Amino acid sequence: MIAEGKVITSSQELGQRLGLSSAQIRKDLSQFGEFGKQGTGYNITFLAEQLRRILKVDQLWNIALVGAGDLGRAVANYGGFFDRGFRITKVYDIDPQKIGQRIGGFIIHDVASMAADIRKTKIKIAMLAVPAADAQSVTDKLVEAGIQAILCYAPVSLKVPESVKIQYIDPVLRLQHMTYYVS
Amino acid sequence: MIAEGKVITSSQELGQRLGLSSAQIRKDLSQFGEFGKQGTGYNITFLAEQLRRILKVDQLWNIALVGAGDLGRAVANYGGFFDRGFRITKVYDIDPQKIGQRIGGFIIHDVASMAADIRKTKIKIAMLAVPAADAQSVTDKLVEAGIQAILCYAPVSLKVPESVKIQYIDPVLRLQHMTYYVS
Repeated sequence: MIAEGKVITSSQELGQRLGLSSAQIRKDLSQFGEFGKQGTGYNITFLAEQLRRILKVDQLWNIALVGAGDLGRAVANYGGFFDRGFRITKVYDIDPQKIGQRIGGFIIHDVASMAADIRKTKIKIAMLAVPAADAQSVTDKLVEAGIQAILCYAPVSLKVPESVKIQYIDPVLRLQHMTYYVS
Repeated sequence: MIAEGKVITSSQELGQRLGLSSAQIRKDLSQFGEFGKQGTGYNITFLAEQLRRILKVDQLWNIALVGAGDLGRAVANYGGFFDRGFRITKVYDIDPQKIGQRIGGFIIHDVASMAADIRKTKIKIAMLAVPAADAQSVTDKLVEAGIQAILCYAPVSLKVPESVKIQYIDPVLRLQHMTYYVS
């Protein structure tokens, strides 16, 4: 809406664009405060700022990337992180051949130093680009070192304490969203 | 539920597990037929089969992969496709150095032959692992050749006719789902 040059919006319009009811929009927002006045709607720039603050995407998050294979290399070279609030600051691998080499401007560090590094630097988010067979054991180490959120590229289902959040990059799920429409 | 050994479920239980109302579950299913009897609930195996048929994920879909860089290589080697109904059958790249080489068991073909190949083999789904700057022009060629669904790994927003479905692999969106919970 900002890109469209709009200044004010309403819970009706937000609901329409998001596929939710206006009541749901008002209820959800009311959990976090008051963002508009009855009858005058929401100032879009102000609302966007507040949502970014609430979702904590108004800051720069440091990320540890584990796995420096083809996928790790692609992730390290991905150009879409920094300007959207995320920054890879450390890359780890277990392969002695890779340790000390560079990918995407990052030196590959020994996974043996990972837990101590993460504790010291207080990194809270990790991306997992390791083989499926290694994903759980690496996850256990990450969680023990204080990682609170993991983005997993491996086709596995990870077990973590309830306080740790996991999201999966699952291309098959994305493909399954589309097959219904293919004739 | 099948894995849990359950045999029968209800719209209430389905709604609860999916975060939807039981009325929504009944309404959605009724669009496609009758899958249970009033008062006796749904046979889970039968319902799952019917849903797989409706969503067309009960068949094997051939996929063209475009882009054989680090990411394309990782996608070609990804082990999670085949047993979930998808199979990469062709890989394309524009780089003369790569054409004729192999990744993940596939020969890399010249992107110049892509449109004719896709028309001939009637492949309907493509995965895009090309640089962001090339994504739109490759997409235009794919759509013209008859591709109806595209899974895009590049951090761009593609323009396609309304009949063509697009899904994006967006790691930043996944990360943004978690930051709220990180302290």
